[in-house]
Amino acid sequence: MTETNTFNVAPARGMRDLLPEETELRDWATQVIFSTYQQFGFARIETPAMEHLSLLKSGEGGENLQLIFEVLKRGEKLDRVLEQKEINKRELADLGLRFDLTVPLVRFFCSNQANLLYPLKAIQIGSVWRAESPQAGRFRQFTQCDIDILGIKSEIAEMELLTASSEAMLGLGFTDFTIRINDRRLLSALVQSCGFKGRHDAIFIAIDKLDKIGLDCVVRELSKITADQESVRKLHEVLKRCGNGVTVKEYMTILEKELDAQVLSAQGRDGSSSSGDDNSLKDEDPFAPLESVIAALERSSRGRYHVAFDPTLVRGMGYYTGQIFEISCPGYSYSMGGGGRYDRMVAKFSGRDVPACGYSIGFERVLGALQDRGFKPPSGREKLALIYETDRDDPTLVMEAAQHLREKGFAVSTQPKKKDMRKQLDTLVEHSFSKFASFRGDPHNLEIKDLKR
Amino acid sequence: MTETNTFNVAPARGMRDLLPEETELRDWATQVIFSTYQQFGFARIETPAMEHLSLLKSGEGGENLQLIFEVLKRGEKLDRVLEQKEINKRELADLGLRFDLTVPLVRFFCSNQANLLYPLKAIQIGSVWRAESPQAGRFRQFTQCDIDILGIKSEIAEMELLTASSEAMLGLGFTDFTIRINDRRLLSALVQSCGFKGRHDAIFIAIDKLDKIGLDCVVRELSKITADQESVRKLHEVLKRCGNGVTVKEYMTILEKELDAQVLSAQGRDGSSSSGDDNSLKDEDPFAPLESVIAALERSSRGRYHVAFDPTLVRGMGYYTGQIFEISCPGYSYSMGGGGRYDRMVAKFSGRDVPACGYSIGFERVLGALQDRGFKPPSGREKLALIYETDRDDPTLVMEAAQHLREKGFAVSTQPKKKDMRKQLDTLVEHSFSKFASFRGDPHNLEIKDLKR
Repeated sequence: MTETNTFNVAPARGMRDLLPEETELRDWATQVIFSTYQQFGFARIETPAMEHLSLLKSGEGGENLQLIFEVLKRGEKLDRVLEQKEINKRELADLGLRFDLTVPLVRFFCSNQANLLYPLKAIQIGSVWRAESPQAGRFRQFTQCDIDILGIKSEIAEMELLTASSEAMLGLGFTDFTIRINDRRLLSALVQSCGFKGRHDAIFIAIDKLDKIGLDCVVRELSKITADQESVRKLHEVLKRCGNGVTVKEYMTILEKELDAQVLSAQGRDGSSSSGDDNSLKDEDPFAPLESVIAALERSSRGRYHVAFDPTLVRGMGYYTGQIFEISCPGYSYSMGGGGRYDRMVAKFSGRDVPACGYSIGFERVLGALQDRGFKPPSGREKLALIYETDRDDPTLVMEAAQHLREKGFAVSTQPKKKDMRKQLDTLVEHSFSKFASFRGDPHNLEIKDLKR
Repeated sequence: MTETNTFNVAPARGMRDLLPEETELRDWATQVIFSTYQQFGFARIETPAMEHLSLLKSGEGGENLQLIFEVLKRGEKLDRVLEQKEINKRELADLGLRFDLTVPLVRFFCSNQANLLYPLKAIQIGSVWRAESPQAGRFRQFTQCDIDILGIKSEIAEMELLTASSEAMLGLGFTDFTIRINDRRLLSALVQSCGFKGRHDAIFIAIDKLDKIGLDCVVRELSKITADQESVRKLHEVLKRCGNGVTVKEYMTILEKELDAQVLSAQGRDGSSSSGDDNSLKDEDPFAPLESVIAALERSSRGRYHVAFDPTLVRGMGYYTGQIFEISCPGYSYSMGGGGRYDRMVAKFSGRDVPACGYSIGFERVLGALQDRGFKPPSGREKLALIYETDRDDPTLVMEAAQHLREKGFAVSTQPKKKDMRKQLDTLVEHSFSKFASFRGDPHNLEIKDLKR
């Protein structure tokens, strides 16, 4: 091919084409996730691919803000920028491609609230774009698949997001996965209680690596970040004592023994003090909702998946304000999805205080895992090739034969006969055809044969 | 809302948000179209939203080329452009958002041919972007829904595209529509035979308006475009004699009487002379395939829709090389979709001669027509609201009740009780809930009630 190309016909850098076999798997997975979420009362909404750059950059997108594809201004607006003596790079673009579905969701909610059922339970499935350095398996356009609940302050939101997502994962054929849960306020309390001043983000990032590099390496990394060795020692002490399977209650006891209990309870109250449409966080036990979510999930899991409190779970985004969670699958070092509560983001855009909580299935990772295990989606209609000879057969009669076969329940693709019929049939098998029939002049007299591997 | 907004939360200019009621209709229509096309052996493929600008601008996109959203270069690549003394506007962007699905399809085919079944029968459903002046009902991001067959030279391609698309239209509830068919070569023959020199595009555009403005206005417009009044007179003569319902044969007789028969037959041969994988155009009657397609469609319509030869059908795109078609619905002045044969586009990109033919359902127009008639898609699971009191009810038990109701077959949305319950129930009806149940402490003792308008 390449020799005769007069154009570069590869997709743009970091982008990819999806072939029928790939879209088939994607469409099946989308359908499983979508129908599960619908059973939980979620409804699909859609926002445009492009947003005002000012909006995209106002959010707490972290490093994603550096990765926005910016869209050039058009017409006179562009000319005016270019006429200036000193061209300001930041003035060349007015729109950007969305880098996630959360910022657009919050804008959508603020813009359309009068016409939406409140609380809003939204499904979004769509492409997002990030100008990352292309790597194996990492693309500059990929699909995100989120559910969000806006307007519920109580932990029922967390329960619904996680139950629905677990059922979706089970529907996709995943078993033995673990929902890991933590609370951002508990994490802040830990770090504050240890006496760390400032730079909590860097400390969170180090703690987040515990799973991968182990406690000793985390401590070594922390020692590089901060000069406060006493705080590092305290943190080491606490983390050493939280093995796998620690409960929230046990963890609280460890913390209270080791650290300043007062900071803890202040954290809990602070997080729950903003007013909302409902309020079930109890001042006397600020982390009861965390226990309650874990208990509810254990109950609805009926042994089909695991639920674990993980005091070292961090999640990257700065906007989380309460519970955070991830789903891990055995054999994969990265999570298959995650989310959390972000109660302050709507207020930032609209001034209105609206609690919010979301979960994002790692759509591309889930697909990758399905492909890893050679999973083939259950197909709908059986695929049948109706083979005809272009120079011999009357197209109208071929069409009639195809219609006849469709009425029998097949998905029928008419295929002109090739010189090497053996090879042609093999190719059809590769493209998941299971039957074929050769057209012989009579649309109602067709012999259907099996295609075998 | 607007008073308290700290941000402009409207979508970007010309873009729109889709609410649950809208996505429900879109998802249903997509499913109907998609499953119909699958029965005809088409398989979905997907290309990235962005393509190299050079590729987008190389096609025959006509005026769409002026409407491309261009994506700013990034990092050092952008800096190098801005360092220049004279900044070239054309060097600021390297990527663009696709303005249709045909140029990306041809690139896809050239790039992936080794892994594709040949001939390729592709479905594409996706967003395209055009920086048009926003108007009522016209958006800068909209959905296109195309099927294309690459690799079939015979008219069986046209037959399949049109039969499949008609079945899809019927599945969407459209009846009484008309498939109008013409051949670009017949149109060229007409204009050439009348003696017009150069500027055929402008003459095509004038002829295309016949339906809307009538023959006299078309002739008046033609007289303004060209000084060649004798050619205008000849064209007038021919068009006067082609009433509704003219057959290809009748039209040929009219043309032969009026015009130079030699030009006609040369046109037919020229169009069919490029080599392909199959070849059923017969030199003795170059427009027999057109009659054959019309006959096949009349047969498969079984009276459910109309098929008409329309010698004045033009279609805007310059890349068409053979048959062209549109579907018209009574009551709408614009078509509900269209397409045609574009046998030379693949060669332009790859140097390889591959026949191609496509049909594009006017997805947004079809949706508009469904909305015009107040169509509601058949819903899946019945929607039930489980109403609980945040301050009173145990979330774990509410979740259990919801699970119980889901097992009964409902799509269940838990809803915190609002102060004005009457109003709350009315709102649920507006959002297409048909049932509700109030949680009263026992997850297994729930009274399901009807929600009535």
